[in-house]
Amino acid sequence: MTPIPNSNRQILLVSRPQGAVSEDSFRIVDAAVPEISDGQVLVRNHYLSLDPYMRGRLNDAKSYADPQPLDEVMIGGTVGEVIDSKFDGLEAGDRVVGMGGWQLVSAQAGNSLRKLPPGLPLSVFLGAVGMPGVTAWIGLMTIGEPKAGETVVVSSAAGAVGGVVGQLAKARGCRAVGIAGGPEKCRYVTEELGFDACLDYKAGDLYARLKAATPDGIDVYFENVGGEIFDTVIRRLNPFARIPVCGWISSYDSGALYPIRNLPIILTMRARMQGFIVSEHLEHWADALRELGELVAAGRIKYRERITEGLEKAPAEFIGLLHGANFGKQLIKLI
Amino acid sequence: MTPIPNSNRQILLVSRPQGAVSEDSFRIVDAAVPEISDGQVLVRNHYLSLDPYMRGRLNDAKSYADPQPLDEVMIGGTVGEVIDSKFDGLEAGDRVVGMGGWQLVSAQAGNSLRKLPPGLPLSVFLGAVGMPGVTAWIGLMTIGEPKAGETVVVSSAAGAVGGVVGQLAKARGCRAVGIAGGPEKCRYVTEELGFDACLDYKAGDLYARLKAATPDGIDVYFENVGGEIFDTVIRRLNPFARIPVCGWISSYDSGALYPIRNLPIILTMRARMQGFIVSEHLEHWADALRELGELVAAGRIKYRERITEGLEKAPAEFIGLLHGANFGKQLIKLI
Repeated sequence: MTPIPNSNRQILLVSRPQGAVSEDSFRIVDAAVPEISDGQVLVRNHYLSLDPYMRGRLNDAKSYADPQPLDEVMIGGTVGEVIDSKFDGLEAGDRVVGMGGWQLVSAQAGNSLRKLPPGLPLSVFLGAVGMPGVTAWIGLMTIGEPKAGETVVVSSAAGAVGGVVGQLAKARGCRAVGIAGGPEKCRYVTEELGFDACLDYKAGDLYARLKAATPDGIDVYFENVGGEIFDTVIRRLNPFARIPVCGWISSYDSGALYPIRNLPIILTMRARMQGFIVSEHLEHWADALRELGELVAAGRIKYRERITEGLEKAPAEFIGLLHGANFGKQLIKLI
Repeated sequence: MTPIPNSNRQILLVSRPQGAVSEDSFRIVDAAVPEISDGQVLVRNHYLSLDPYMRGRLNDAKSYADPQPLDEVMIGGTVGEVIDSKFDGLEAGDRVVGMGGWQLVSAQAGNSLRKLPPGLPLSVFLGAVGMPGVTAWIGLMTIGEPKAGETVVVSSAAGAVGGVVGQLAKARGCRAVGIAGGPEKCRYVTEELGFDACLDYKAGDLYARLKAATPDGIDVYFENVGGEIFDTVIRRLNPFARIPVCGWISSYDSGALYPIRNLPIILTMRARMQGFIVSEHLEHWADALRELGELVAAGRIKYRERITEGLEKAPAEFIGLLHGANFGKQLIKLI
């Protein structure tokens, strides 16, 4: 049984970044362990997930989600153990996943938590069998609609979402081609994850290498980065290609947006491009989690974690994540 | 009964334009009236339709259709009268629509022609109850999916496609806002076609005026022009907006493509953008033609034609069409 800590260490957002994020936007504080009211449970968070979507929340701009409020605990997905419960259906010792935020302990509505099955390590429910995996599944299956024999390309292929996209595509009988930054990530994508090819976008002349790696063109492009890579990849689209747009990380930090010049290809190829966010497709979560859990348990979906110990490391690791410095699903170990 | 002319005047494409189209790319010739073989009919073309899609065919580039071959008769939609038939189901005197090309007489496969119902003037089957009207219907209904109370914006609103888009949107209970070039076209769009508003893109600060004209944002943007107008309009998209991409006329002539900077909005608004061409959705043509015919007959879809007499005028009128100089569905009268 996990002990209750004496105080609850938290990280708050204290200012909105102008351009690149710096650690100055965050402050670490020690607060009292919260009391729980009826319907709530107290959770000792074991792992905090750091994800690119958090960058959008730092801005005070019109987007799909409200901005992260200033001087409040940063939002974030967590897995942990229930240490006290005033909610029927969860009791001390249960393993749960939810939005516990950047803190050691959280008081959460019991009905906002998902109780985790036994058999897999806790951290995987923040990755391949969690929000990133479900994001890959929903974007690929409901927008990408891959058919056996088609070619699926995914950017950020070494990332938590991109890695699952390619492995799901392989499981569907597709050719999977990744794009990632650097030879180490690319080796991982092909040798460990089993993609058919992976292109290092830092190595120059991406278009020529993409052309060689996609001899039959591209039927599905799962987009995580946008910008210049998007403008290059769409030149290889086949007629009726589908583009699930999951992220556009290339512009998250910058006010000056990369100018896209090849967009008329959407018309000439009669392509379909669609943005989505995973939390708006709850109807697919159960199917997605079932398949992802089975494929991970069977070793057919592999993943890599980068686990950093200590809540105080979260801001620096988050900044690294935004710049592609981190390799593996970024987690902060809190216990 | 229409007489058979002594010779068949034709316009050929003789060179591919580099940049802007000029009349030098075309040549007028007088050929023999063709013989027809089994399954064919001989048609005396009455009207030739000039349409923006023809610009794409002049290039030797990868696109949805094969390039127009050099030294052959320019492709084009025509309405006319059957003057001889070796096809069961069509006989002399029947009114038909088909792809007769830029010429006075055409030998066409009988099964490629649609026999026209009585009651409406022949020319309307090249416009509101023809390919442009069906283009509007298919893009709006199958990709735009407008719901009553939503706001539909369409560019080239005074054009043959755009005008029908807005009137169909009004018939569905939507707010219809057009974008067109110049005050005369805008007056026509609001006063004659009944759009709720029309914005002159030449009048400066399009975004501010668009914002005022779309107080509830934009749910459907039917795109005919692309480029800077696209980049401006998408700033007003609502969550889950749909963008049927029918044309991108702003770049048809130019190699230097306008740089789109606001594309991440597709993600933040979870919008869907899809290119289409009308000839790939044959399953919807019957429904579309039925509704369009009824609405035109009832005076609920209005349209304007610009009829120029003489095949030799086709190149100049086509060039004007590409530059927005023409006002009304551009037709060439051939008889």
